[in-house]
Amino acid sequence: MAEWAERLTGVRGVLLDISGVLCDSSASGATTIAGSVEAVARLKRSPLKVRFCTNESQKSLRELVGVLQQLGFDISEEEVTAPAPATCQILKERGLRPHLLIHEGVRSEFDDIDTSNPNCVVIADAGEAFSYQNMNRAFQVLMELENPVLISLGKGRYYKETSGLMLDVGGYMKALEYACGIKAEVVGKPSPEFFKSALQAIGLEAHQAIMIGDDIVGDVGGAQQCGMRALQVRTGKFRPRC
Amino acid sequence: MAEWAERLTGVRGVLLDISGVLCDSSASGATTIAGSVEAVARLKRSPLKVRFCTNESQKSLRELVGVLQQLGFDISEEEVTAPAPATCQILKERGLRPHLLIHEGVRSEFDDIDTSNPNCVVIADAGEAFSYQNMNRAFQVLMELENPVLISLGKGRYYKETSGLMLDVGGYMKALEYACGIKAEVVGKPSPEFFKSALQAIGLEAHQAIMIGDDIVGDVGGAQQCGMRALQVRTGKFRPRC
Repeated sequence: MAEWAERLTGVRGVLLDISGVLCDSSASGATTIAGSVEAVARLKRSPLKVRFCTNESQKSLRELVGVLQQLGFDISEEEVTAPAPATCQILKERGLRPHLLIHEGVRSEFDDIDTSNPNCVVIADAGEAFSYQNMNRAFQVLMELENPVLISLGKGRYYKETSGLMLDVGGYMKALEYACGIKAEVVGKPSPEFFKSALQAIGLEAHQAIMIGDDIVGDVGGAQQCGMRALQVRTGKFRPRC
Repeated sequence: MAEWAERLTGVRGVLLDISGVLCDSSASGATTIAGSVEAVARLKRSPLKVRFCTNESQKSLRELVGVLQQLGFDISEEEVTAPAPATCQILKERGLRPHLLIHEGVRSEFDDIDTSNPNCVVIADAGEAFSYQNMNRAFQVLMELENPVLISLGKGRYYKETSGLMLDVGGYMKALEYACGIKAEVVGKPSPEFFKSALQAIGLEAHQAIMIGDDIVGDVGGAQQCGMRALQVRTGKFRPRC
């Protein structure tokens, strides 16, 4: 315990990953990970600031928070940093009109984005929508652009559903990068800008916060590269060897 | 002409790519590229040795040669180096039992391969069969193996059909490499072993042969790395900038 107290010296806030830390997902819904509802409640009763920092890109923020509230979590939309809203902001700032290769569940986030005559491609964890036809269309849009811009909501290798490990958006990002000879821009963990925006929302510096996640690269590595401390849980996609 | 004669000094044989050089493919079939039937006929009348060296992995060798014969080409199965037969030989030599993520058109090549209780994954240009579900199954098979082996029939970025550019197997290979944290073994161009087996079949050394293809990486780069000369045609997937 003394060791832990030392490691946590100066920590004033916690960034919490959602999938694999608070809950596991399945085709039929989500289930809480044992102890996580009470852990969030305790954190919120403590003097620590709490922010949720997720790469979830299959659901809209509203739907995601709704699911978590139903599971018993004390959480609101304003407390979550998620890649789809961050992407919309970038698209607007840079005058980008995306071709969207995304899950139907997250489409509403892009309702007020102009998608006519696309000048970039946005991919997210599209699940079954990662068909050959849809991937090929995204590829063709990129190849027709003089300056192809590919934005990827996260670059996770895989995530865990109750039925098993599932391919995440990262592989599909790599496929388009390779086929088009380009480099994607990642919005979401482990992008430093994404962690910084989560820290900014709770008014903390990197050295004052700890990230808790199940992904050794996206959560732990990304946070550490930003100057944060980080802790990997043994739930979710955690595997003894990665 | 003098310059060409110089460049071709000592050339005793020609390796010919098929798709994009002899013909273009489409969903409904294949069409010859202008002048290619006569060019093959002239090469065969010349003292040069001729071998066809393809990464075609949507069709069986028999079907591919049948299509080319119907288009008027002087070609037989024995004259073609193709990745599926080369893969079957490797699988047998190493006692590998593949999970196959391939196009239905090439499945017959694997008829005498044991696919029970898979200990590796073989992917080829699967086209529409590159569904999320099929990719995820291949991913899960690899993640369950202690020593995951992924064999990819070629690693092309894209190819050209009459309807436009199409994603080739390379991107999907990259997706699985990234998701599983592994490196695939490529059977087909630009693998040196593949070029060597084509050269061996016509009894030539690398410096005695020239490769003619439309892919700057798979055909031209691969052949040059083997010590061959190479020539890129301006048909098929050729683009002024790659």
